[in-house]
Amino acid sequence: MKYNVITITREFGSGGRTIAKELAARLGYSYYDYNLVQKIAEQSNFSRQYIEEHGEDASQSGWFAFAWNNYGGGLSDQLYVAQRNVITNLAEQGRCIIVGRCADYILRERTDTFHAFIYADRAFRQKRIVDVYGESDESIESRVEKKDRRRITYYRYYTDRKWGQAKYYDVCLNSGHIGIDMCCDLIERMVK
Amino acid sequence: MKYNVITITREFGSGGRTIAKELAARLGYSYYDYNLVQKIAEQSNFSRQYIEEHGEDASQSGWFAFAWNNYGGGLSDQLYVAQRNVITNLAEQGRCIIVGRCADYILRERTDTFHAFIYADRAFRQKRIVDVYGESDESIESRVEKKDRRRITYYRYYTDRKWGQAKYYDVCLNSGHIGIDMCCDLIERMVK
Repeated sequence: MKYNVITITREFGSGGRTIAKELAARLGYSYYDYNLVQKIAEQSNFSRQYIEEHGEDASQSGWFAFAWNNYGGGLSDQLYVAQRNVITNLAEQGRCIIVGRCADYILRERTDTFHAFIYADRAFRQKRIVDVYGESDESIESRVEKKDRRRITYYRYYTDRKWGQAKYYDVCLNSGHIGIDMCCDLIERMVK
Repeated sequence: MKYNVITITREFGSGGRTIAKELAARLGYSYYDYNLVQKIAEQSNFSRQYIEEHGEDASQSGWFAFAWNNYGGGLSDQLYVAQRNVITNLAEQGRCIIVGRCADYILRERTDTFHAFIYADRAFRQKRIVDVYGESDESIESRVEKKDRRRITYYRYYTDRKWGQAKYYDVCLNSGHIGIDMCCDLIERMVK
């Protein structure tokens, strides 16, 4: 295998997680997404609940946290450092796929790492979110809008990169246009 | 074939033109790049020389032209309109690949069109430019820097889009990392 580590940065509802899971199965790699929360909790003083509430999908992350709560800002940064250490260690062990959490940026210096960005237009994502996660009291437009804004803000704050810029990735795939299965096939071909 | 038209937006030296040419041969599609200049000249009042000097690689395009020369600005816009008409007509005829010249933006509403963005880091592009086009009196760093700036400015002015944003494309491929042959193979697979 050409690459020891694969990072998948994804837009909410684009199917990036599904692609990562499928690829991990095909390649025999470990897969890290929500299960990173447990690892971070084990290796830091943060509770699972705090990690879930203050990660990349947090309502108050990065400079929001700073602006709204002096202490919150400091803790958010400590959580980011704990998460960075977990991701760096996992990459060191190798043969893994890591979803989100700025892993593309954290592992940018490693030459054995392949970086993919998965995105899709809003209409595709909204439909898929309702299909996969179901309806909620909140409108689907508002759910996607909020989640996008949180991830973009979090990513910008901790990486100083703009979200969705092709140059940071080996490949960027529009899952809404080319299909989730095709995304898996193409990445598998590239990394093998 | 799923797509009637393919647009390739590319960074200078990334191999986008080579990829487009190879794909056209594999798919039996017409290929339009420099030969667009001749078509635009035939269908407008502009000379070949003017088109070459005021296209996407022009030293004075878009708002530069406006700022520096009132008349130049107006003519640049007329040239863009002539070019847009040529590209729109070619797409109407179908079975073609169009390189650069904001074709991705001009044909954004067509559902039978596949949009690819090809890019690579500076070191790869600099080496490739010297290999393909040879040395010149100007340093390679300066040649790439200038050409990038011109294309980005031209693209921004006529499309109001930022250069290199994944969301405008079906696929974005880092030719420096995955290789030019692999780019051809992947796009061929996606469009067939």
